[in-house]
Amino acid sequence: MITKAERASAVARTLVELGRAGIAVTDAELEQIEVADFGLGRLEEIGLELLVYVNTDRVCAKELVLFPWQLCPEHRHPPVAGEPGKEETFRCRAGTVYLYLPGQAAQTPRARVAADVASYVSVWREVVLRPGEQYTLMPGTLHWFQAGPEGAVVSEFSTKSRDEADIFTDPRIDRMPKVAG
Amino acid sequence: MITKAERASAVARTLVELGRAGIAVTDAELEQIEVADFGLGRLEEIGLELLVYVNTDRVCAKELVLFPWQLCPEHRHPPVAGEPGKEETFRCRAGTVYLYLPGQAAQTPRARVAADVASYVSVWREVVLRPGEQYTLMPGTLHWFQAGPEGAVVSEFSTKSRDEADIFTDPRIDRMPKVAG
Repeated sequence: MITKAERASAVARTLVELGRAGIAVTDAELEQIEVADFGLGRLEEIGLELLVYVNTDRVCAKELVLFPWQLCPEHRHPPVAGEPGKEETFRCRAGTVYLYLPGQAAQTPRARVAADVASYVSVWREVVLRPGEQYTLMPGTLHWFQAGPEGAVVSEFSTKSRDEADIFTDPRIDRMPKVAG
Repeated sequence: MITKAERASAVARTLVELGRAGIAVTDAELEQIEVADFGLGRLEEIGLELLVYVNTDRVCAKELVLFPWQLCPEHRHPPVAGEPGKEETFRCRAGTVYLYLPGQAAQTPRARVAADVASYVSVWREVVLRPGEQYTLMPGTLHWFQAGPEGAVVSEFSTKSRDEADIFTDPRIDRMPKVAG
């Protein structure tokens, strides 16, 4: 749960970061920026800011903004309604993203993860994405990611996005954000 | 048909325009930039520069670069292999794009079209896209577009791209570009 003030502040910072990355946004889109704290109430540490450009039955594209060291917790996209799960490509536009996937665990991962969060992380293969670099995740792949010290802006190109269907490893997580008074 | 020198020059200009739009590109991607003259040998006037980020069975994303007044000729995306045609969203990142679609024709369209090209244009409803503005085209929709005086950079988010299947109104067009010695 985040407060209205936290949300407003996060939206303002998101706009600054999008602007720095050279990404133009219309006035109408300002209203649509989503601030997700995954229900943990620790937005600065565990959270994600999103601007969804398009999300039809077949195609989705969004911009993700992460503040310095902000982390999107481990999850996967299961099959829904007889369709394979969401396939997604992350393309780093600004800053640095540390992306973690199944496979050989990094010896000294760059991520900084609180102990309670780390206890729900199961994949540690590290892929570092810098501006212009990208990675495509096939459906069902467990993954999580964290911005580096300067934060990050990441474009996501995918099939239909159904955030409510995502399966998080950490049972405390509630993907659909709430804003308190 | 374009010469190698024309191609090299177009690639260099494309990189400048992507850079101006704040879009980072890796060295490996430089080699992948496509310069399409649609077989008409009038690249400056009729053409498109493309960088495909991803194109799987389900999702495609690319960056389109248009030089000042460069035009992508009228075409549509038909069903292929039992799937509906390509659905695509154009999002303007820099410059201005004039997009033409079926519907009420513009009284005084902003596009500048040579007579021989105009003779193969059948849709004249005008949508002007400036940075941060976008438009989603459902499969099968006839469309064409032209950059304004300062050129344009446009992100395209779509289902699988099969350029070779596109149906152009102008029978002289060959979508798959050739480079001469």
